[in-house]
Amino acid sequence: MNPEPVHRHVFFVSDSTGITVETLGNALLSQFDHVEFVTATIPFVTDEAQAVEVAARVDAAVGEDRDRPIVFSTLADSGLRKILSRSNALVLDIFQAFIGTLEQELHVGSSHALGRFHAVTDKASYADRIGAVEFAINHDDGAGTRNYEDAEVILIGVSRSGKTPTCVYLAMQFGIRTANYPLTDEVLSRAALPSPLLDNRTRLFGLTIDPERLRTIRSERRPGTAYSSPSRCRTEVREAEALFAHHGIPSLDTSAASVEEIASRVLLRTGLRRHAY
Amino acid sequence: MNPEPVHRHVFFVSDSTGITVETLGNALLSQFDHVEFVTATIPFVTDEAQAVEVAARVDAAVGEDRDRPIVFSTLADSGLRKILSRSNALVLDIFQAFIGTLEQELHVGSSHALGRFHAVTDKASYADRIGAVEFAINHDDGAGTRNYEDAEVILIGVSRSGKTPTCVYLAMQFGIRTANYPLTDEVLSRAALPSPLLDNRTRLFGLTIDPERLRTIRSERRPGTAYSSPSRCRTEVREAEALFAHHGIPSLDTSAASVEEIASRVLLRTGLRRHAY
Repeated sequence: MNPEPVHRHVFFVSDSTGITVETLGNALLSQFDHVEFVTATIPFVTDEAQAVEVAARVDAAVGEDRDRPIVFSTLADSGLRKILSRSNALVLDIFQAFIGTLEQELHVGSSHALGRFHAVTDKASYADRIGAVEFAINHDDGAGTRNYEDAEVILIGVSRSGKTPTCVYLAMQFGIRTANYPLTDEVLSRAALPSPLLDNRTRLFGLTIDPERLRTIRSERRPGTAYSSPSRCRTEVREAEALFAHHGIPSLDTSAASVEEIASRVLLRTGLRRHAY
Repeated sequence: MNPEPVHRHVFFVSDSTGITVETLGNALLSQFDHVEFVTATIPFVTDEAQAVEVAARVDAAVGEDRDRPIVFSTLADSGLRKILSRSNALVLDIFQAFIGTLEQELHVGSSHALGRFHAVTDKASYADRIGAVEFAINHDDGAGTRNYEDAEVILIGVSRSGKTPTCVYLAMQFGIRTANYPLTDEVLSRAALPSPLLDNRTRLFGLTIDPERLRTIRSERRPGTAYSSPSRCRTEVREAEALFAHHGIPSLDTSAASVEEIASRVLLRTGLRRHAY
């Protein structure tokens, strides 16, 4: 019953960065397993000339596939949407889908302002994010333990359990000041929390990982070493989890999760208040 | 003609992280200037019991405002959507809005798989992102110049022009290996590119900023110092821009832009191929 794989050109068009429409479009497309999509993102489409150019580019893809291209767009300006909708593609505009209902519901017209997706609307939230990103960089991998009382959360875990990207994401997306400290085999063999962690126990959050997945990741980095051996991966993970259990440190398995998901779950589990939107 | 400010409770509900629905919802809401929204994000809603709980939480907000709450959701499962739609709110589901049209267009049913927004579908792209984030951290603020040939782009600019967050975002979102090097007043007074930059001239991208905005940012950090004085800010920006012009280095004004926007524009201007989606 599986149909032949078919190709489809997909365009993500935005009057802003295109990051949101791309994520949304990709999520929708991921629901269709048997279709192979060839995607392109066209950001910062803000005037008529640009919209005409995009429509032409979309039309150029017509005929390359068996079926017409699909366009996901976020264009606040109805004039630009109109130009794009004249192309021979299926155009799905996210503004168009909701803005009318919202105008009705809110009893007011929308401002049709462009590029609001990632506008710097809140300078304080912006400063929080920047400050948090710098904090994460300066407190990566066990650095800057003297400032741990300024951290909102301190991620701990074995090497390659996902600490660094999670810290950076928590900072960038949510404005949270995050540090991370590696549970090296040396730390783990002592079976006790190092003093900077012990002094900040309430701020700790553990990341753990399936030993086999860990072995794969470490092998890509340093193949054939003790560091990436199955036994070492198993032992480290077991000892780290024992440490979490012993000290009642909340923890999360990162094996099958994306950075976005790990960060969102840490936010949810810690109950931390985000500073950026 | 301006109506009184009104309050509205808004919920962002997702079977995944909620990051996309939140961004999208906030962008739509930002079109309505006269309404004050009180927002909450409820991520990882994946079973019926959770959906029932969310519906109850939404209904608890009914009556707190003059008007009913608004729910933006991304729920791939139609059963969960149904539960939520029984609440007394305006429910706008992004899946519902598009999935039917897409099924028709693609001549196949969707898989209705949950949490696909940030799923780890592509392990290679995941590794690229993590590697790029670590590269950005290890090559922040002039560090690791010996590896500059491994950088895809090297951001240069005066202190507080936005280099660090842009590097981190380029790495996290697009998997691009980015370094950054500060144009200090010492560097600028020499009016010549330092040798690590000269050797990698084709990788350079300049960030510039309005001197008055720079003064504001620096003043928050170190008020009343020479570093944050209007004349120093003006001189540094002028000298940095002269350096960009002299060496034909492409550059971008970051004054009114968000990190997402700066990063997206750098990607577009450099023509770099992204490694992560």
